[in-house]
Amino acid sequence: MKLQLALDLVTLAEARAILDEVHDLIDIIEIGTPLIIREGVRAITEIKQHHPSRDVLADIKIMDAGEHEAKLALDAGADIVTVLGAATDTTIQKATATTHAYQKKVMIDMIAIQDVAPRARQIEALGVDYICVHTASDVQAQGHNPLEDLKSLQHALNKARAAVAGGINLDMVQTILPYQPDIVIVGGAITTQQQKRPAALAIREAIA
Amino acid sequence: MKLQLALDLVTLAEARAILDEVHDLIDIIEIGTPLIIREGVRAITEIKQHHPSRDVLADIKIMDAGEHEAKLALDAGADIVTVLGAATDTTIQKATATTHAYQKKVMIDMIAIQDVAPRARQIEALGVDYICVHTASDVQAQGHNPLEDLKSLQHALNKARAAVAGGINLDMVQTILPYQPDIVIVGGAITTQQQKRPAALAIREAIA
Repeated sequence: MKLQLALDLVTLAEARAILDEVHDLIDIIEIGTPLIIREGVRAITEIKQHHPSRDVLADIKIMDAGEHEAKLALDAGADIVTVLGAATDTTIQKATATTHAYQKKVMIDMIAIQDVAPRARQIEALGVDYICVHTASDVQAQGHNPLEDLKSLQHALNKARAAVAGGINLDMVQTILPYQPDIVIVGGAITTQQQKRPAALAIREAIA
Repeated sequence: MKLQLALDLVTLAEARAILDEVHDLIDIIEIGTPLIIREGVRAITEIKQHHPSRDVLADIKIMDAGEHEAKLALDAGADIVTVLGAATDTTIQKATATTHAYQKKVMIDMIAIQDVAPRARQIEALGVDYICVHTASDVQAQGHNPLEDLKSLQHALNKARAAVAGGINLDMVQTILPYQPDIVIVGGAITTQQQKRPAALAIREAIA
């Protein structure tokens, strides 16, 4: 399993400082949606330049202009771009074709999709690389987590690889392990800790 | 009806130049999703500073962290923020509460929602200000437009005001007129024209 670190509720300077502490423990650096809203694509470029050996995921959650928006992130240096599972199949196809032409990868974010399995099967048929079950942060606050969705997703998928996100901490990693997603996405359980490296190391060791 | 100009596939410098030509003809300046991906919230701040008498809409299409993402746009100077109709009700509620606490407005983007009317009724009950039917740019290329969705929306709404977007040009404005949306959103039919001011003036006069 790969560990993806989501850099969401931080400034670019804070994101850089966090990465200085933990970059060797993670596989994929996520430039989160709030960080892209805050800084634009230069957040992608700057972090990729400083961490060229890591894959950088641009969480741009494409919903409208698949080709144009994917290119903005890819030209800035992204290795993976996200598209919403709630987008039309046409948008998913255009974003995927564009991204694959760059020899980069697409992750579909299934956030807010109520019935994951049937939509995941449709989306897998469009040739995407990763499908991510994701409990919205607003919904996590109500006590939900993405474990049930991950089970449904792993049953549904044949080729695309599974990812899981949404309030994941060390305890949840233990419950997720049996379902073996390809990517585990962790944000606040590392970025909001006083001791970030020990937090990242514990999660790294749990999924290794 | 109000005219909203969507600044999407442009740089910030190009957006500024377009506004120099047409700002007095439009009511709402939209900082489009691709422009926010490109530049971050400084696009909102810079354009609001230069056009303080115009409402600035930040098309951030919130899907996850309603409060945090809305604040990023509002603190940057946005008067209206967008949330996806595909988001959970919880996310829509949090974004709306946050935005109303700033005495600003929320627009729900119904892009990729297949059956507009029932979802519009649910969303209207959450207290949002505007609901926008929106044909994705990738889907416009297949010959679709948002007129049928606008008819359904106007039937469904009681209090929230209607907006319409998605490849709207002068011809389409004529067909939209009978349905009297509160806001008509135009992008490329102004921004990609050689003669931008005459194009904007023709649409302004059509909806006046």
